[in-house]
Amino acid sequence: MPDVIPALTPPKRILMGPGPSDTAARVLAALGAPTVGHLDPYFLQVMNETQSMLRQVFRTQNELTLAVSGTGSAGMEACVVNLIEPGDRMVVGVNGVFGGRMADVAGRAGAEVTKIERPFGEVFSPEEVAAVVERVKPKVVGLVHAETSTGARQPLEEISKIVHEAGALLLADTVTSLGGIPVEVDGWQLDAVYSGTQKCLSCPPGLAPVTFSPRAVAAIDARKTKVASWYLDMTMVRNYWGQDRAYHHTAPINMNYALREALALVLEEGLENRQARHKKNHLALKAGLNALGLTYSVAEPYQLPMLNAVVIPAGIDDVKVRQQLLNEFGIEIGGGLGPMKGKTWRIGLMGETSTSRNVLVLLAALERCLLDQGGKCPPGAGVAAANAFYAAHR
Amino acid sequence: MPDVIPALTPPKRILMGPGPSDTAARVLAALGAPTVGHLDPYFLQVMNETQSMLRQVFRTQNELTLAVSGTGSAGMEACVVNLIEPGDRMVVGVNGVFGGRMADVAGRAGAEVTKIERPFGEVFSPEEVAAVVERVKPKVVGLVHAETSTGARQPLEEISKIVHEAGALLLADTVTSLGGIPVEVDGWQLDAVYSGTQKCLSCPPGLAPVTFSPRAVAAIDARKTKVASWYLDMTMVRNYWGQDRAYHHTAPINMNYALREALALVLEEGLENRQARHKKNHLALKAGLNALGLTYSVAEPYQLPMLNAVVIPAGIDDVKVRQQLLNEFGIEIGGGLGPMKGKTWRIGLMGETSTSRNVLVLLAALERCLLDQGGKCPPGAGVAAANAFYAAHR
Repeated sequence: MPDVIPALTPPKRILMGPGPSDTAARVLAALGAPTVGHLDPYFLQVMNETQSMLRQVFRTQNELTLAVSGTGSAGMEACVVNLIEPGDRMVVGVNGVFGGRMADVAGRAGAEVTKIERPFGEVFSPEEVAAVVERVKPKVVGLVHAETSTGARQPLEEISKIVHEAGALLLADTVTSLGGIPVEVDGWQLDAVYSGTQKCLSCPPGLAPVTFSPRAVAAIDARKTKVASWYLDMTMVRNYWGQDRAYHHTAPINMNYALREALALVLEEGLENRQARHKKNHLALKAGLNALGLTYSVAEPYQLPMLNAVVIPAGIDDVKVRQQLLNEFGIEIGGGLGPMKGKTWRIGLMGETSTSRNVLVLLAALERCLLDQGGKCPPGAGVAAANAFYAAHR
Repeated sequence: MPDVIPALTPPKRILMGPGPSDTAARVLAALGAPTVGHLDPYFLQVMNETQSMLRQVFRTQNELTLAVSGTGSAGMEACVVNLIEPGDRMVVGVNGVFGGRMADVAGRAGAEVTKIERPFGEVFSPEEVAAVVERVKPKVVGLVHAETSTGARQPLEEISKIVHEAGALLLADTVTSLGGIPVEVDGWQLDAVYSGTQKCLSCPPGLAPVTFSPRAVAAIDARKTKVASWYLDMTMVRNYWGQDRAYHHTAPINMNYALREALALVLEEGLENRQARHKKNHLALKAGLNALGLTYSVAEPYQLPMLNAVVIPAGIDDVKVRQQLLNEFGIEIGGGLGPMKGKTWRIGLMGETSTSRNVLVLLAALERCLLDQGGKCPPGAGVAAANAFYAAHR
């Protein structure tokens, strides 16, 4: 090591992948604000404000609503391990990487897991969930609301009724959906819900918002065994976030500052305005991509506005395009995961990233990458189509 | 919620509790630097640099050395759940809150836990470890190098030989020691070691440096069952930190920036210089506290320089003093944990906090708090003694 180690100077990207998304200056400023102690009255107030804002964003009155001190996958594990005791039956819908991950987590927690499966990019019908729930009689049904690996939106409202009529709890992954499309925790009666900070909330990764319904809390309180994970044990974590303020672990102070500011920005914009913005920029992007000859890999009714999964055209080199976007334009888009690897790109329009400026620059840059590889797209057509869409939807 | 939610403005504290400690401006600046993607070539380089610097700070060649995406307690859980399979025997030394926590974590992971116990503030002798290891024949022995709840330092070098001669692995908690007193992972042959960022590394909380010896890695590779925690499963996490760069979970980008900068500052100072600084300020503080009539609750040879546990004098109100320090002087010190609650204060001199300026201001402020409650300390004696110590040790 040299005597002086040069300071870090990260490049300024436009983050149009599957997350993290771009971060507002206010959020970055909060990250760099002075650290206080985890029991400092100032931090306890930040926690109260964060809880209150999380409830608004999750659209819930759930008391047990907080930010888990880990990334979205820690939120997934927190929801599963608190609800599941060894031998409990759990049904998991696997139509992408994150449903597969949930089944894995549930198995490690000792659940008897029944997977229902759909090809990547498709979603589950209420009928098939009804059938498996009737057959298995699970304690918990786990579904992914917005599959980050495929760009598909799983409708949950009707399924929730079926799950509850069968006496089960509904666990939902809203990592990519929260803040970008409606997530109605109370309205849809979701029982355990986790999200991540680095998608449509536009905060850097590091925390996982979670919320548990009174039914889920009753299930946790009725446990006969300790939660498998000490770190994620809500029976203890809730005493730190609740009135007792009992020390559990040292909260990531500055990350919680950042989440507080990111949530403030969401609420200042308003959930409906934010969802409308995500939808508008998605439709403009889609108009532009279609004009360039690109198609989506998910059927129209289930396309996520914040995660546009598009089919890589024949003859185009996946990795070369993504490297050119990054190196020439500073734009990150995502490759495919699992069986989608090399077959799709995942173009994120999440939170701060979802702007008309970003839509236009991506279409312009992507066109150049495609043409550089001998692609057949009509020059200028992508930008023209997106601009025409914006002009028609001022 | 109002239309505009006022931005967060945390107070500037002097963090002299059991962590978090004060943070350098360079580290805070890195936290607020632009987020890049978790597979961005720039971030992969940051990870490489962080690993290399972690190895230097841990004094190890261990390949499996990385930052777990959670706080120190997640690091503890990561070490335990990767080494332990259900039914494995583990001996845990409990002489404070964190030893107790480790036993709890091990039990949840399915270990047959044998606790050896010492009163809070005492440490274990090689002989008693030899006796229990011979009797139990454990797979893993877990000890806390620096008990954050008591301020006691557990010597490990001799115990390590005993543990290895019995064919067991030694797991060590260095949350509070790393960067402040010697931690010789290879020299002492420690097998699984975790730390936290917010103590003597002076980075905000949120990550847990861990390192595993080749023996520990062999034990992980020989597992017959999956690691209980998906999030902390080193068989997968290592493929992201290793050459494969296989996506596991989205790393907390900005927290990793901060850790990289904090480690750079540690190495620029030099480990020996840094340890000497911690020792010097500890001795100055002790001279001052003794002059004020305060005594330590740990025997001299085992006192931690970065965590000074002192007995609260009879007639002095614990909470009132800590509130006055915080409200009048912006200084945080820690209360006692567990059976030490109300009996000791924990005064941290960790990382950036360990300066003569902080020692002097604490002695001056604490004197006022004690006198305000009718305490009998000789006015000015604390500062005078510390200044005399510094003058004699320039």
